[in-house]
Amino acid sequence: PASFVYWGFSYKKLHGHHRLSIKPRSSICRSYIVSSLPQARGPTQLDKSQGLNFVTKDIDTLVLDCDGVLWRGDKLLYRTTEALNTLRALGKRLLFLTNNASKSRLQYKSKFESLGIQVHASEIVPASYCAAAYLQSLCFPLHKTVLLIGNTGVEQELNQAGISYVGGESDFFPDMCSPSDIEAIKVDPSIGAVVVGFDPRFSYSKLAYATACLRELPGCRFVLTNGDHGDKVGGGRIMPGTGAISAAIETSSGRKPVTVGKGGPWLLPWLCEHYGLEDTRRVCIVGDRLDTDIALGKQGGLRTVLPLTGVTSLEDLQAAGEEQLPDFYVPNLATLAGL
Amino acid sequence: PASFVYWGFSYKKLHGHHRLSIKPRSSICRSYIVSSLPQARGPTQLDKSQGLNFVTKDIDTLVLDCDGVLWRGDKLLYRTTEALNTLRALGKRLLFLTNNASKSRLQYKSKFESLGIQVHASEIVPASYCAAAYLQSLCFPLHKTVLLIGNTGVEQELNQAGISYVGGESDFFPDMCSPSDIEAIKVDPSIGAVVVGFDPRFSYSKLAYATACLRELPGCRFVLTNGDHGDKVGGGRIMPGTGAISAAIETSSGRKPVTVGKGGPWLLPWLCEHYGLEDTRRVCIVGDRLDTDIALGKQGGLRTVLPLTGVTSLEDLQAAGEEQLPDFYVPNLATLAGL
Repeated sequence: PASFVYWGFSYKKLHGHHRLSIKPRSSICRSYIVSSLPQARGPTQLDKSQGLNFVTKDIDTLVLDCDGVLWRGDKLLYRTTEALNTLRALGKRLLFLTNNASKSRLQYKSKFESLGIQVHASEIVPASYCAAAYLQSLCFPLHKTVLLIGNTGVEQELNQAGISYVGGESDFFPDMCSPSDIEAIKVDPSIGAVVVGFDPRFSYSKLAYATACLRELPGCRFVLTNGDHGDKVGGGRIMPGTGAISAAIETSSGRKPVTVGKGGPWLLPWLCEHYGLEDTRRVCIVGDRLDTDIALGKQGGLRTVLPLTGVTSLEDLQAAGEEQLPDFYVPNLATLAGL
Repeated sequence: PASFVYWGFSYKKLHGHHRLSIKPRSSICRSYIVSSLPQARGPTQLDKSQGLNFVTKDIDTLVLDCDGVLWRGDKLLYRTTEALNTLRALGKRLLFLTNNASKSRLQYKSKFESLGIQVHASEIVPASYCAAAYLQSLCFPLHKTVLLIGNTGVEQELNQAGISYVGGESDFFPDMCSPSDIEAIKVDPSIGAVVVGFDPRFSYSKLAYATACLRELPGCRFVLTNGDHGDKVGGGRIMPGTGAISAAIETSSGRKPVTVGKGGPWLLPWLCEHYGLEDTRRVCIVGDRLDTDIALGKQGGLRTVLPLTGVTSLEDLQAAGEEQLPDFYVPNLATLAGL
């Protein structure tokens, strides 16, 4: 089509390519080339030389998911460090984009370094940081406060952004169990946003307080780091995710959050602007999930590569619809670096 | 139509009326007359004499919602006691049907009596009792255990039914916060159902344990007392309801519960069978909510009356779609007794 609206952003066709127009805070309107989706016909595997050739010629920036691409849990995957070093030596820009909101950029930097990978904190974009960056992109008033359902990851990022908060890991929420307890909640009128991240101390009291803020404070924003339903831990068990916590708050408040991580409308245009990714056709997202990583890449006109080291198996790929498929799949990240 | 299926139950036209066939546990199949829906044209108000006339001539059994019909919170509404006494004096059968799962039938009996209303426990059908009755209707094996996310209301009803449980108000759930805590959960293989009722001590640990049971135990049932998103307490505040708690568990487990209270498929056929309500055209549901009370009544062929003493205002009625409207509305319950 000549123009279309996707996730609330307007795309216009110009010189044969779709362009996305974004008005950043500097108020200088920039436009980004976002091509139409490449039409994949079934999954196409790249071998080492094809992988290296593709990255060398076609790609300037690699946007890498972490868990399932670089490591699983605390264990590095096959030749991750060498692969990243090779990509850097080729002059490629690297960004690490993860839906995990339990760690801040600095906490992630420590994890990278403990595994022997050198990174700059500005190269890491966890969903915890996205929450703070989203509020900054809205010019969140600094006399306003955030009610945080989350842990240290988001706490540190809000601190870095100079945004004050209540809740988080503090004892802000006393036990509120009876109708009279709930009725007695004094909602702090300075709260301007409820931010929901991963919170393994989620409780009914937090649910009740967040619901009161979202229903009663005019203009109170509702921000969700990521909508993941759960993450696999050992033995095939699922650890309930931030999406489950949010589902409770959405149900009682009757409100829908803005998701700022992968899966939401805000991330890609912000990423393009913040990191100056002008030609998204020369950006490649490498991720192990079809529904978040590959979907984000395809929908924004990025190139997409799925390594088989994460949650998606070759069988899953073969069963997926054509519109879900990445451009390419590889056995692991190292293949893209010719290793 | 000559026959149709509604909520999984088969209705057949016979002698001009639709009949619902139910196979109860006694295995003698009974059928119940359920007429087609009366076609209301806008809300019709009844005055005292019309109310009394309607009940006297057309109705054998009144199924009464409690909060918003008999009382609000702990305060009796206008002439509730006299209205109930008059209806009893007219020979009408009374059933009290509430989606509240915080109290058992015996706890409700105490509440009725503390407000000066004489009732028999068997006349009260709270959602806590529905959960136990539902498991009994399935012949839940008595060597199986229930995982209970709920409080004393459901605990007492499970005890009455001779069904064992873990959880509830006990210290069954330790703090489980880290991936290794979640991985270490030892799921009790004797758990045959997760029952979710109102639980103001709901926590992430309960979410994680319930998710593990629902995903990992073959045949494990998922039972929800009621899907209410929240209840109004003072000052227009919302106390998050059982539906919000369930939404979190549904999201992380990927499973949908069977709702046994109003709003679910099981209640009405069971009520007809359990209380021998053979001609549902002579049963009147009196409730203050269009989406639960009136919907239940209309869809089952009961007569429906909405008193304006609860959550639905006259403005709400005027704005509602014709298919949602009750047969009649009244200022309060007393009007139906001619008071």
